[in-house]
Amino acid sequence: MIEIHPLLGLGEVDEGEDLGRILSEAMAPFRPASGDLLVVTQKIVSKAEGRVAYLSRMRPGAQALELAEKTRKDPRFVELVLAESSEVVRAVPGVLITRHKLGFVMANAGIDCSNVGPHGEDKALLLPADPDASAARLRASVHERLGVEMGIIVSDSFGRPWRNGVVNVALGSAGVPALHDRRGSKDRDGRELRVTQIAFGDLIASAAGLVMGEAEEGIPAAYLRGCNLPAGDVPSAKLLRNIDEDLFR
Amino acid sequence: MIEIHPLLGLGEVDEGEDLGRILSEAMAPFRPASGDLLVVTQKIVSKAEGRVAYLSRMRPGAQALELAEKTRKDPRFVELVLAESSEVVRAVPGVLITRHKLGFVMANAGIDCSNVGPHGEDKALLLPADPDASAARLRASVHERLGVEMGIIVSDSFGRPWRNGVVNVALGSAGVPALHDRRGSKDRDGRELRVTQIAFGDLIASAAGLVMGEAEEGIPAAYLRGCNLPAGDVPSAKLLRNIDEDLFR
Repeated sequence: MIEIHPLLGLGEVDEGEDLGRILSEAMAPFRPASGDLLVVTQKIVSKAEGRVAYLSRMRPGAQALELAEKTRKDPRFVELVLAESSEVVRAVPGVLITRHKLGFVMANAGIDCSNVGPHGEDKALLLPADPDASAARLRASVHERLGVEMGIIVSDSFGRPWRNGVVNVALGSAGVPALHDRRGSKDRDGRELRVTQIAFGDLIASAAGLVMGEAEEGIPAAYLRGCNLPAGDVPSAKLLRNIDEDLFR
Repeated sequence: MIEIHPLLGLGEVDEGEDLGRILSEAMAPFRPASGDLLVVTQKIVSKAEGRVAYLSRMRPGAQALELAEKTRKDPRFVELVLAESSEVVRAVPGVLITRHKLGFVMANAGIDCSNVGPHGEDKALLLPADPDASAARLRASVHERLGVEMGIIVSDSFGRPWRNGVVNVALGSAGVPALHDRRGSKDRDGRELRVTQIAFGDLIASAAGLVMGEAEEGIPAAYLRGCNLPAGDVPSAKLLRNIDEDLFR
């Protein structure tokens, strides 16, 4: 049996706060063991890491102005999205999808202007600079405080090309096989398995999404135990397809 | 807390078997309550419904022969994939992605030739003809036997355009809000929520995927309780984007 526990009562997280301490304290009553999992939303990781930008400081260039008109978004916001992106994938009214410099194809380069504190709409929250490194730091901090080697996932909610609604995926991870390769394994009749790679990082993020809801609702982390994952530490960066291996377009 | 239990010992499921009975018996020890969830892989649903085809009976046409060369797949298999599909999305060596007639964009129209019994490679398993209806029938059968109104998800594993590895998604559902619309809701600071639609059907399927593994491993169903889902019964068909609303290409 797998158990998924929301971590309640974490409150607001401010820049510079020790997320490892806050989360370790929240998990302590569950007496975590090595191999258990902690899923944390990108949002509180970015907040703790001070990944903020201010729209009022952005000076939109020609591309941003053009895309802002096309998407009917704030040109300063679009400039910020472009600064975080390597490629524009789609721009239509209300929608700006880019490839983030980290490789993620997502809306608005993952930048969030809602609920980021007193500066209101002027303050924007960026993705962590290196989500796998963020997860590794959390893992080390939890180990130091609780003495256990947990698996850590930094998650965010993503739209999908052909399916409505968002699901949670792994932006970063440490201590888990975010992508598990079963190439060469056989089924019960001795045939090669049809599916050779499983995105465990994303499965875990989505499972935790059932208790976390959206970060806006104030449950930004979940504790999981009982997942019988294969051995191995494969970072979430491996979940990103190379551009030239994109099979769907 | 959410609990996810694998349903063990179900054994092989043959055509015409009463899946509702088999699954009700497997869940009975957990004493399910109304609102609890049952996730079943597409594979055992298709097996029970007799959704089989035989490669030896396929007569590949011109398009199938051409695509078979391009993808290096059996022309009879490609003919079967085309018969199930409305559009070819991508065909390269080893890969054939189509839009299934039901609307799903997926590899091989979801057709599975592995581990479908004694006929070996000749026997192919198709998707259920109407996965939401399959889920509704299961829901009715479980209600009749156990007296509870459970939510049912028929799941399958899908690849994604820009991410490696497969995740479980909802092909069909009954009694759950597979897609939940929060349009108009506000965050804690009174701003409109950034994310307005949540694909709960897919989150549940992925959560169950953590205990089911692949169907090939013989754990084709999971029982979940403690999910505090919003009210409403939205079928999984609503998870499919209209072609003209595809935001990513």
